[in-house]
Amino acid sequence: MPEGKNLSELINSKPIVKVCGAYDAMSAKLVEFHDFDAVWAGSFAISAIHNVPDASILTMTEFFNAASTMAHACEIPVIADCDTGYGDATNVRHMVKKYENAGIAGICIEDKTFPKQNSLLENGNNQLLSEKDFVAKILAANEAKQNNAFTIIARVEALISGIGMEQALKRAYAYEKAGADLILIHSKKITPEEIFEFSDSWKGSAPLVVIPTTYYSVNVDELIEHKIKMVIYANQTLRVAHFALSKLLEQMKNANNMSELQNQMSSMDDIFKLQEMYDIKSQEKDIEEKLRKLGYIS
Amino acid sequence: MPEGKNLSELINSKPIVKVCGAYDAMSAKLVEFHDFDAVWAGSFAISAIHNVPDASILTMTEFFNAASTMAHACEIPVIADCDTGYGDATNVRHMVKKYENAGIAGICIEDKTFPKQNSLLENGNNQLLSEKDFVAKILAANEAKQNNAFTIIARVEALISGIGMEQALKRAYAYEKAGADLILIHSKKITPEEIFEFSDSWKGSAPLVVIPTTYYSVNVDELIEHKIKMVIYANQTLRVAHFALSKLLEQMKNANNMSELQNQMSSMDDIFKLQEMYDIKSQEKDIEEKLRKLGYIS
Amino acid sequence: MPEGKNLSELINSKPIVKVCGAYDAMSAKLVEFHDFDAVWAGSFAISAIHNVPDASILTMTEFFNAASTMAHACEIPVIADCDTGYGDATNVRHMVKKYENAGIAGICIEDKTFPKQNSLLENGNNQLLSEKDFVAKILAANEAKQNNAFTIIARVEALISGIGMEQALKRAYAYEKAGADLILIHSKKITPEEIFEFSDSWKGSAPLVVIPTTYYSVNVDELIEHKIKMVIYANQTLRVAHFALSKLLEQMKNANNMSELQNQMSSMDDIFKLQEMYDIKSQEKDIEEKLRKLGYIS
Amino acid sequence: MPEGKNLSELINSKPIVKVCGAYDAMSAKLVEFHDFDAVWAGSFAISAIHNVPDASILTMTEFFNAASTMAHACEIPVIADCDTGYGDATNVRHMVKKYENAGIAGICIEDKTFPKQNSLLENGNNQLLSEKDFVAKILAANEAKQNNAFTIIARVEALISGIGMEQALKRAYAYEKAGADLILIHSKKITPEEIFEFSDSWKGSAPLVVIPTTYYSVNVDELIEHKIKMVIYANQTLRVAHFALSKLLEQMKNANNMSELQNQMSSMDDIFKLQEMYDIKSQEKDIEEKLRKLGYIS
Repeated sequence: MPEGKNLSELINSKPIVKVCGAYDAMSAKLVEFHDFDAVWAGSFAISAIHNVPDASILTMTEFFNAASTMAHACEIPVIADCDTGYGDATNVRHMVKKYENAGIAGICIEDKTFPKQNSLLENGNNQLLSEKDFVAKILAANEAKQNNAFTIIARVEALISGIGMEQALKRAYAYEKAGADLILIHSKKITPEEIFEFSDSWKGSAPLVVIPTTYYSVNVDELIEHKIKMVIYANQTLRVAHFALSKLLEQMKNANNMSELQNQMSSMDDIFKLQEMYDIKSQEKDIEEKLRKLGYIS
Repeated sequence: MPEGKNLSELINSKPIVKVCGAYDAMSAKLVEFHDFDAVWAGSFAISAIHNVPDASILTMTEFFNAASTMAHACEIPVIADCDTGYGDATNVRHMVKKYENAGIAGICIEDKTFPKQNSLLENGNNQLLSEKDFVAKILAANEAKQNNAFTIIARVEALISGIGMEQALKRAYAYEKAGADLILIHSKKITPEEIFEFSDSWKGSAPLVVIPTTYYSVNVDELIEHKIKMVIYANQTLRVAHFALSKLLEQMKNANNMSELQNQMSSMDDIFKLQEMYDIKSQEKDIEEKLRKLGYIS
Repeated sequence: MPEGKNLSELINSKPIVKVCGAYDAMSAKLVEFHDFDAVWAGSFAISAIHNVPDASILTMTEFFNAASTMAHACEIPVIADCDTGYGDATNVRHMVKKYENAGIAGICIEDKTFPKQNSLLENGNNQLLSEKDFVAKILAANEAKQNNAFTIIARVEALISGIGMEQALKRAYAYEKAGADLILIHSKKITPEEIFEFSDSWKGSAPLVVIPTTYYSVNVDELIEHKIKMVIYANQTLRVAHFALSKLLEQMKNANNMSELQNQMSSMDDIFKLQEMYDIKSQEKDIEEKLRKLGYIS
Repeated sequence: MPEGKNLSELINSKPIVKVCGAYDAMSAKLVEFHDFDAVWAGSFAISAIHNVPDASILTMTEFFNAASTMAHACEIPVIADCDTGYGDATNVRHMVKKYENAGIAGICIEDKTFPKQNSLLENGNNQLLSEKDFVAKILAANEAKQNNAFTIIARVEALISGIGMEQALKRAYAYEKAGADLILIHSKKITPEEIFEFSDSWKGSAPLVVIPTTYYSVNVDELIEHKIKMVIYANQTLRVAHFALSKLLEQMKNANNMSELQNQMSSMDDIFKLQEMYDIKSQEKDIEEKLRKLGYIS
């Protein structure tokens, strides 16, 4: 694992670790540029840019390619949202090796059955896997990981599926015992009360993680107060891109020219910089200098 | 070739065909939704989302995957920007078969040497291939295509490289004679004069195509007047996504919560609709109904 | 669907359709060259060349890439072994579209639970999916297919899992009713008795398919007599390649030179022919001729 | 770089390093099993299994996928045959990062122009790149590599292209000076004389590498005597697989049953072992044991 990609060090050194979702290397790079601590390679957003439902339609290969391209582009850690682990404990074992080898900092798996549906979909299918079968996946993930710094996040869907707080806590303790490094407690309530009830009750030592998509008005301060150690803004980048594209295209459709739209878009040069086009020019100069020293250019 | 994906029919039926650039299936789908005639799968934008320079760094495989994912998602035609054709005439032959098989409506190749650099980069490398070698590529492309409706666009870089109008016209005639269906005349001037000089002089029968990135203030009306039959807005979607993401992330960095940013982003539900999550629910119902008729559900 | 790739026409025109397994484009091309009627892109063999277990470890993407590369290389139909369908009815729906679009002639799905293990593994996991859930997959496959000629094969694992002949027949009728075009009845017995018992009892109109891996001594004549319409030799090519490689490498390890091994291997020229290297040379000549006519070569 | 994957250590510790070609993970694993020192992921063989010419038709992505799958499967080093480097110095720079990150031990690039044709093809195109431009690629490769153990092999095609021994030596010295770790001197003669003339004249310190495809009768002893430090048997595995498949399929075509062919093929069980199917069973037992300790199984 390259330096600076260690999530547990980040957790120890900060009041809260701020993670932002991305769906391709450009969005990941922009997340890094704006000082977030880590990138979330989320399956909802990655499915969306492929124009397919967030319902286990893309395969592990496609999610993996997206996450590893981000990990290749970024210095900060990339956390891969691996849904249910794409099968059983044996699949999780292979998956962890693959992701760790690619320089991804950690993975998150959730305790729903495969194929899953997005947790926030109205009337979506949120059937839970048995605690035993999910514990088996965590055990396998732990056996497969080679570097202790590789982080395994267990996502508890008990509150989403409606089996209650007690069960949520029971499962979280079980997942920690099986070797989960972090516990992600998910909720689709529009306020953070049930999240705080969970975190206030939590006596485990695994740090807690949340994704405040529906309870977006929660303050970072409150999360810190309630012992949350990591917050993931999972889908805002995707949603703002969708919004901006929709607005632009609506204007473009009716525009006779692009003059009035220029101030809504980055310049070609901004993108060249992001792409490191100018690095190519300086690398070319560097090679030229060396060729000159070797006598090939006079 | 599926119905409605025929570019030459479009050209015959409209004063000008309006094409908008996209870089993934979501942006392509939004281009379609906003009534553009076709999608441009451009190498600049696709390189950008992979965070690599637009300099033949991504391989044909990666550009192809992007374009074919768009073609799979869209009803309207997808035109693939194939840079220099990724090699010589033999490579172009294999390329055309691969792209046509994937349901892509047409390809565009340009008469620069491989590896190329973006035409709009200051001090970029814009070395031209010999006319003969580029004609060989067009001949090969023509031999490879199976359906007459598959469209081959030859992009003339003579004005970009600075060899002048006469050469630009000479090459355009040569490419048409070799079998190019459309001629894309490219310019990096900030006004459309040289484009119009070209199009006013053009006596060929192949329709003309332009990409007004630098001369963005040109009106569609003027393009039509000057016999341009297709306009490609190649990179606006990418640039607006980059702009919107940068702005959002700057705000998110300092925000205590996400409340004030909600009005800048689409809702989860907007994305679910794009992803056709609700189609899954109705398909599930449909299968359920059939299972009921077969007696599996009472 | 290209001509000559229609499996049901083949079935109607021959006493028995002979299908041979392949695992890459070269082995598929050799299967075609040796007059088999179709290619079986089997998951056991494709897993083996990736050096992973035949246990749903490779993803649909990897199996799809293998099968579509074969379909691209061959004139004869390619049948893709799709294991359990990589998920539920929704996944099968997406899968069928993807495979049909790629020019694959048909798919085979089996009624085990996901992730599966190879049916012939001693003490392997052969848990069956409920009849209802597998019927749902066949219904979804049928809705997804666009061309009637695309063939859906339902593989009955009842005899493998040990639930008996009656259940095997009951499930086969149910799968036919749900829309399966062919019924593959699988067995791991070393003689064909249970297969013949099944086929002799079968009153359905869907033709029957078998894979005689364990009962390899069965004669084609007997299969025809017992109303089997398609025989798949699924893994012989893989196993002979493994055998030949092992033997060669054992010899190479101890050899001082390669002289004595030359007669065990094809020549470079044989491979050039397979690769169509000489077609490139003749295509180059053809382009040269055209360039001459156009005046580029004197 | 994982332990045991260091090619220069191998070269220092052995009279000659024996490398054998492979084209997929199974053949690579068998090369390893039979005690070769390293695997050669050769473009001729990888092109062949994709049924395309060895003429830069497959992209870097496809060659990379093949080589990285082998590297993932093997403990011994994998050397990737990277043809001409898929572009210019800038492409080579990106390529080296990608290959090194994937755990590949080294790459080989040759001094022909892109796109290349196989060096052994009769009347093939063997045009050489200028010394200067190839030196630029080696300089870029060297700048891109992060770990000193990553090995850059420069392949000299001067003897193949017919520009003579003096030029071959001149280029080899230039490539060494630019940073090549090993010099591969290639020949298509049927005897090793010109290779030995080269190696006997060589005063450089970079070790020499050969691929005795055409002069296959050369003894390993002779190679050692003539200061060759690495021998690559590049295509024997591919050619024996092609030979064995052709022979088997010829027999299968006419066979009434498979009984007589069983002794030419490995058993299902041999393949299960290669695939580590039994490891899955023991891993499942291990997880079961842990679940028992945790009280989930009684």
